[in-house]
Amino acid sequence: MSLNTDALKLHAENRGKIEVVGKVACRSYADLSLAYSPGVAEPCLEIAKDPGLVNVYTNRANCIAVVSNGTAVLGLGDIGARAAMPVMEGKALLFKTFAGVDAFPICLNTKNPDEIVALTKLLEPTFGGVNLEDIKAPECFEIEEKLKEIYDGPIFHDDQHGTAVVTLAGIINALKVVKKDLAKVKIVTSGAGAAGMAIVKLLMDCGLQNVIMCDTKGTIYEGRKEGMNKYKEEIAQKTNRFMVKGSLADALQDADVFIGISVGNTVTPEMIKSMAKDAIVFAQANPVPEIMPEEAKQAGAAVVGTGRSDYPNQINNILAFPGIFRGTLDCQASEINGPMKIAAAQAIAAIVSPAELNAEYVIPQAFNPQVAPAVASAVAKAAMDSGVARKEVDPDWVAQNVYHLT
Amino acid sequence: MSLNTDALKLHAENRGKIEVVGKVACRSYADLSLAYSPGVAEPCLEIAKDPGLVNVYTNRANCIAVVSNGTAVLGLGDIGARAAMPVMEGKALLFKTFAGVDAFPICLNTKNPDEIVALTKLLEPTFGGVNLEDIKAPECFEIEEKLKEIYDGPIFHDDQHGTAVVTLAGIINALKVVKKDLAKVKIVTSGAGAAGMAIVKLLMDCGLQNVIMCDTKGTIYEGRKEGMNKYKEEIAQKTNRFMVKGSLADALQDADVFIGISVGNTVTPEMIKSMAKDAIVFAQANPVPEIMPEEAKQAGAAVVGTGRSDYPNQINNILAFPGIFRGTLDCQASEINGPMKIAAAQAIAAIVSPAELNAEYVIPQAFNPQVAPAVASAVAKAAMDSGVARKEVDPDWVAQNVYHLT
Repeated sequence: MSLNTDALKLHAENRGKIEVVGKVACRSYADLSLAYSPGVAEPCLEIAKDPGLVNVYTNRANCIAVVSNGTAVLGLGDIGARAAMPVMEGKALLFKTFAGVDAFPICLNTKNPDEIVALTKLLEPTFGGVNLEDIKAPECFEIEEKLKEIYDGPIFHDDQHGTAVVTLAGIINALKVVKKDLAKVKIVTSGAGAAGMAIVKLLMDCGLQNVIMCDTKGTIYEGRKEGMNKYKEEIAQKTNRFMVKGSLADALQDADVFIGISVGNTVTPEMIKSMAKDAIVFAQANPVPEIMPEEAKQAGAAVVGTGRSDYPNQINNILAFPGIFRGTLDCQASEINGPMKIAAAQAIAAIVSPAELNAEYVIPQAFNPQVAPAVASAVAKAAMDSGVARKEVDPDWVAQNVYHLT
Repeated sequence: MSLNTDALKLHAENRGKIEVVGKVACRSYADLSLAYSPGVAEPCLEIAKDPGLVNVYTNRANCIAVVSNGTAVLGLGDIGARAAMPVMEGKALLFKTFAGVDAFPICLNTKNPDEIVALTKLLEPTFGGVNLEDIKAPECFEIEEKLKEIYDGPIFHDDQHGTAVVTLAGIINALKVVKKDLAKVKIVTSGAGAAGMAIVKLLMDCGLQNVIMCDTKGTIYEGRKEGMNKYKEEIAQKTNRFMVKGSLADALQDADVFIGISVGNTVTPEMIKSMAKDAIVFAQANPVPEIMPEEAKQAGAAVVGTGRSDYPNQINNILAFPGIFRGTLDCQASEINGPMKIAAAQAIAAIVSPAELNAEYVIPQAFNPQVAPAVASAVAKAAMDSGVARKEVDPDWVAQNVYHLT
């Protein structure tokens, strides 16, 4: 109650959380003649001759759009574009605070994916990249795919890939604690929306073989008829190879890892007990995890993580999206591809030193100032190594970017 | 040459001229819990229940889009949306510097007016108002008209109305210097694009009766066939009532006022000599005025103004658009109507005290810090008096807004 009142007060007293400020002086006619008429004609003419120079003479190269239509906001669901604005302003605040990335809310009043794609494409002259946010599945998949084909700049749906990257980082370290191998473990996920799809795909890219995804109808398997869509059908062809048909409880038997990115308190202590020895449980549903950490621990889980800051091992996207975009923009990568995401996850995991690593500490804290620079550096390197970087990272530019917590 | 080099250097070294920053702290989990998850859900839910609250809990109420497609940039013409970005960043810089208005460039890669309208409308959840900029005539008229019908917030094409307001302010004072009456003078304009149309309409709203507009084909008159469009035909029914057919030179005979918002050095000393005694000459073409001030003065003009900062009486839109939007946003006016524009012009004119007023000083300097607050105050009052204000001006909020030159 008090937190809610304080939150409303913060937002009302400050009239939101972000503002636009100048980076150059504007005190005199001399200033004006360079920043505006007539001097501004020069960069305009240069860009007219070579459109790529917009990334040299304007803020575009450091500036991304945070695009949402408010159809899947936090745990609130479809509340619409206006109601999504505080979250998008918050996202912009975090991008700037954690990694010096300029981000601006673009809340679009439409549920039509084609409109979102067309409109975002028209904004290309202004934004060097796009972070899609809080757009419901399955439309978010289509929108991301289409934009990746046509947009001159990286496209990243954080609800999918930010979550996947941090989850992978946690899994990398948790598997070290319990001394298991990703290629050999059985992983069960609950939730086949944006986050679930992306997590499973990223883990499989890293060697995971044995995975069962579950949704509200139970296990997803090839040939299932009920509650399917194009994306579930696609993933069903690569997962649940043993064709386990049944409930989440059925799937969890002898599983090494449970990852929950669903809604609601759906996992019982019995289910945890039925898992393999030294089970890893990442119950990431927000605000109520699929099972409370204390219960999971009591039922025998070795490593437990949630999305909550009041428990150890918070799987928080803040660990990923700022540094990922920082590194991507620093080398002007045209996309954020698999190698870059994996590099980000590895960089996050590596923040936890071998000496520090234990069951209660497999993921760095959100406010650890080492994270964003390490992620940025790793992502830029992976971009260069995988051939999608379009410029060398400029160390002076990197140094100027402020990885500070304001 | 050196100014151009310095301008390029400024833009490249700073990577453009604007950035996005946070307004609230983000140093701790406590901060995060209010600004982001879970506290941010509260303003989201409030807005979902009452969409107007987006103007309380986010920056929308202070934030406008600077929308352009780059088809009429400065004196450069159609250089496209990317090449327009430095100008739009500059505009945002000026909005914030002069009146604390948050403005963000929205450069759209399309020449289709319907797309511009549709796209801008979809951005309504994010932006409390729209400043259209550097969009060529006649499309700019259509775009502005349509947006005014459908957008929840004020729409203002600065190339039209900002120019009109400052020109009117200069005319108000210049007429005082030469002791003539707007209702009695003969005004001739050169240029029937965005600025020309808006200037003439605003002057006529203030009592001007006798006006002839000219374009590259000569005088505009009712029934003219060549080089007409829907807007010229409309204005031809209200102007040039004496049906003067001919060139600019023909029109200028015995004119009291010449206003040039065209391109090129098209006015000769002979034309000025043929004007009435104590002629007012506002040669606003940029960067080369229709006639140089020295020549106009030598030919007998009493009061001369241009768009240039290196001559007296600079007709500079900076005097108008920041304060106009400040006042408009302060009272959440739904539009920027005639009374508000006239009030703005009167406020600008009134900055020049009767004691100071003379032929070389009919318009305040762009950097005069009195201007924006005076304009804002007058515009908010006119909004309230004309019934388009949606909230009372909050003096604390006004005091918090920084009318500083940074």
